[in-house]
Amino acid sequence: MEIDIRRRKIGLNFNEKGAAEIYLWAPYASNVSLFANSSELNLIKGDFGYWYLETSTVKEGDEYYFKFQQSGETEHQTADGKYLSRADPASLWQKEGVAGNSTAFNLNNFKWSDQHWKGLPLEDFIIYELHTGTFTDRGDFSSITEKLHYLKDLGITAIELMPVAQFSGDRNWGYDGVFPFATQNSYGGPEALKKLINKCHEVGLAVVLDVVYNHMGPEGNYFNDFGPYFTDKYQTPWGQAINFDDANCDPVRDYFIENVLMWFRDFHVDALRMDAVHAIKDFSATHILQDIKNHVNQLSEYTGKSHQLIVELDLNDPKYINHPGTGGYGMDAQWVDEFHHALRVSAGQEPNGYYADFNGIEHLAKSYNDAYVYDGQYSPHRGKKFGAKASANEGKQFVVFSQNHDQVGNRMLGERTSELVSFEMSKLLAAAVFCSPFLPMLFMGEEYGETNRFQFFTSHSDKELIEAVRKGRKAEFAAFHSGEETPDPQSDETFLTSKLDWNKLSRHPHRNLLQYYKALISLRKEHKALSILNRNNIKATSLAEQNCLILQRWHEDERLLC
Amino acid sequence: MEIDIRRRKIGLNFNEKGAAEIYLWAPYASNVSLFANSSELNLIKGDFGYWYLETSTVKEGDEYYFKFQQSGETEHQTADGKYLSRADPASLWQKEGVAGNSTAFNLNNFKWSDQHWKGLPLEDFIIYELHTGTFTDRGDFSSITEKLHYLKDLGITAIELMPVAQFSGDRNWGYDGVFPFATQNSYGGPEALKKLINKCHEVGLAVVLDVVYNHMGPEGNYFNDFGPYFTDKYQTPWGQAINFDDANCDPVRDYFIENVLMWFRDFHVDALRMDAVHAIKDFSATHILQDIKNHVNQLSEYTGKSHQLIVELDLNDPKYINHPGTGGYGMDAQWVDEFHHALRVSAGQEPNGYYADFNGIEHLAKSYNDAYVYDGQYSPHRGKKFGAKASANEGKQFVVFSQNHDQVGNRMLGERTSELVSFEMSKLLAAAVFCSPFLPMLFMGEEYGETNRFQFFTSHSDKELIEAVRKGRKAEFAAFHSGEETPDPQSDETFLTSKLDWNKLSRHPHRNLLQYYKALISLRKEHKALSILNRNNIKATSLAEQNCLILQRWHEDERLLC
Repeated sequence: MEIDIRRRKIGLNFNEKGAAEIYLWAPYASNVSLFANSSELNLIKGDFGYWYLETSTVKEGDEYYFKFQQSGETEHQTADGKYLSRADPASLWQKEGVAGNSTAFNLNNFKWSDQHWKGLPLEDFIIYELHTGTFTDRGDFSSITEKLHYLKDLGITAIELMPVAQFSGDRNWGYDGVFPFATQNSYGGPEALKKLINKCHEVGLAVVLDVVYNHMGPEGNYFNDFGPYFTDKYQTPWGQAINFDDANCDPVRDYFIENVLMWFRDFHVDALRMDAVHAIKDFSATHILQDIKNHVNQLSEYTGKSHQLIVELDLNDPKYINHPGTGGYGMDAQWVDEFHHALRVSAGQEPNGYYADFNGIEHLAKSYNDAYVYDGQYSPHRGKKFGAKASANEGKQFVVFSQNHDQVGNRMLGERTSELVSFEMSKLLAAAVFCSPFLPMLFMGEEYGETNRFQFFTSHSDKELIEAVRKGRKAEFAAFHSGEETPDPQSDETFLTSKLDWNKLSRHPHRNLLQYYKALISLRKEHKALSILNRNNIKATSLAEQNCLILQRWHEDERLLC
Repeated sequence: MEIDIRRRKIGLNFNEKGAAEIYLWAPYASNVSLFANSSELNLIKGDFGYWYLETSTVKEGDEYYFKFQQSGETEHQTADGKYLSRADPASLWQKEGVAGNSTAFNLNNFKWSDQHWKGLPLEDFIIYELHTGTFTDRGDFSSITEKLHYLKDLGITAIELMPVAQFSGDRNWGYDGVFPFATQNSYGGPEALKKLINKCHEVGLAVVLDVVYNHMGPEGNYFNDFGPYFTDKYQTPWGQAINFDDANCDPVRDYFIENVLMWFRDFHVDALRMDAVHAIKDFSATHILQDIKNHVNQLSEYTGKSHQLIVELDLNDPKYINHPGTGGYGMDAQWVDEFHHALRVSAGQEPNGYYADFNGIEHLAKSYNDAYVYDGQYSPHRGKKFGAKASANEGKQFVVFSQNHDQVGNRMLGERTSELVSFEMSKLLAAAVFCSPFLPMLFMGEEYGETNRFQFFTSHSDKELIEAVRKGRKAEFAAFHSGEETPDPQSDETFLTSKLDWNKLSRHPHRNLLQYYKALISLRKEHKALSILNRNNIKATSLAEQNCLILQRWHEDERLLC
């Protein structure tokens, strides 16, 4: 199966004649049939383990699944020689969740009205990270739509959706997804997502989508029945490593490249935020990220739009964001957690855990000046010299924040900043982010000082898994001895109490803080010394004894001192 | 411990005052003492797990060892809280082998007489790979010296020694070394190696040394008692992966950087051949190979000489040999096994095992033109697309050969080419190598058609290990069903029958072949169309049906057609 930049080929897709074309990669199967509309249709075996079918029997909205016999050739098989029935690994819609059948969805039927939308230059991104399930009471895409004017009014320019790929149950941060092409059913499915994105573009907001290409979730994960999606060569903290460089990796690589292309081309997503790319292990001569970038460049030529790739990266290695011409992978931007860590220690955070590497104000100044705090020095927390200098990279290549879903939710109790620091400090933190020469990001509710916690929640159905997650979470925080109980990830309450409480908006001091955020964002937009992200025109100086930082930024005649 | 380009710091070294300075990295120890001359001397604990001592008690030639108590802090310890006695992991001399004490050796005492030797430009390397133990009857460095005039007369410009780092027993290919700084005792130890290198330079031969930085051998391997030299993050086919990027990797990195520097600076080695660098897994922002290169550059400034780094690489990834300015690791050259494979299939080798990827003459032409045969195409043997184009790299960055220790010795019976192909084909293979725009390498004895096999041999003392190696070797070739027995790696005979038989030199057809090799090498040196390795001035065309290859090379007005 060759990738076609113009349309999705993996999975079930409708062609121009309205017929369904199916490509399934199932090298472990000795025969494959598709069940739909009470019919069984045989797929034809092609090269490299792909199975193919073109049929008019399947219509949009039809449920379908695959039945196949294990060929018995490999050690990975769970049911040697037996027949298995499985949903489509490239399913676009799992109406009944991860355990149900797939539903045929036509990617080309949506009536887009965002033709005027030309995308957003990277340097103009002011990102608002949100979790669909807890952003609103209804917890779905359509209710986000109702908040777009609020967000526009706040001044942000892009929303970033935490992962929406189908996960088990109704409640999950999204990093347990097992159908990378399917939009979460409890959020409203693919049609609702398209409507949301279309609406965002109508009001002039870009959309960033968080995608996970470093592991797959536990429940509903049947990839090993189909083929070698995983490799034992490497480990990840969250499960089997995805096979990007072992034997038979090409279809796996293509699967994820197809996924990237789909979000940009068929869902009009403006940028992807790729989760923890340091956990993507690939020793191929062409790294999968560069391979993705090459395909996205081709797509850009085809669509005439720019499609941004932003990565979460814990390596302080500018190779990831360098241009391919200088040996880089060509990612457009990356998150800088170190800015956050230095900022939070400056604001009083105890230097425990990963904060141990940060001394506060001096390191914050270093991050303003150099993006990476550790760019070759010895890191006590990691026990080694860490990082390399990112001097040649532009300011717009770094995303900074004073909190995000991880930094909040990975605390035992999920306390947001507003619960941990004073009102005045909240303002200072915001100013620190918006005055930076990098791309600012806020986490939903931050702008009005939401105090509801953002906790870790799941809704698995497998009892052993539920217990394992509970225990894991408790064990993670066993050392804290806080006296408080770790919230139960599986309980309804943990989820429900994590939702934003929009009623706060009308109350003091929340209304005040919101006005402050609006003013800050508008200040940043108005002053070129702030909005033009020229790293040559910045100087941060720390006065450690006074715990004080002097930040100078300038553009032509305009000078700003913070 | 900071690396000092000018002198070795790790291990036991004598300073200008004649006192011994000792640096030992032993983060798992709670106290360390050195035993020498019936004295026990306590080492002082420094930063980062290093222990230090300066003493006049230890003199050159003294035996010494370390005694230390396990601190009981880590899971890696074999003897929690117990006292252990161990040789120096950075020992220069293990007179009694891997199980004995270390012997203090002064790196600065040798009287070099190679001041006239200015080194060899990379493009002039014509390499002769040899295994010290089987090259001569005596199997040591001093007897190599007796062959230098023969080698010089043959026309080669560099000898390449298979690894000489101390391994268990007297007989081993060298890839089971466990003291990377110690020169094999059965070969004559460090003084004898220096004499050999000095002699090589006197007669005008360069010396390449094979070093192994991807794993450590099994017997005499006590690294885990000292500290986290290994990591479980990755696997290698030969044992635990070396810790180049996990916590506490800095002293491990420095250990190998010190090793590189020592061979160049203190042994006057001209080039290192680094074994299987694809098995060195390192996700640091600065890859260990680039780190090594940076230090070697500093050393070159200090010594005024060039020090070449040649890698064995099975990734077809030019990043390794690209300049650091373009994101490369800056290695000077690499082996191209694919040239060998294509050549051998062209010469009648059955396309089984890794040969399955090669179609013979067409692939050989591709290798002449592009160095890598697979530079992005699908490789059936690997089951994936493999490699990237090396178009920007120079001819002198690739080492080619028609056989080497691995390709010979990794056959079940260790047959050399001369046993497998006709006399005329032997000549053709040699011509194919010497007419290439790359650096040619031959394997000892090839030049006169040695027919003694080069078999896999060991001389471990641990019975379980001996049995495991025997079984492993048998299992590796179980599928061959050749009717012949796999030679026993541990037996004396397997080693002795692998030695070169120099008496053949006076007999037909060996004498004839030797004359042919001499003529070929001299032809290559005389004709700039051959010796100038300009990849723009070459064209290889294959005629698959005739199994014929037309090779054109030119330089200015000179044109050569083969």
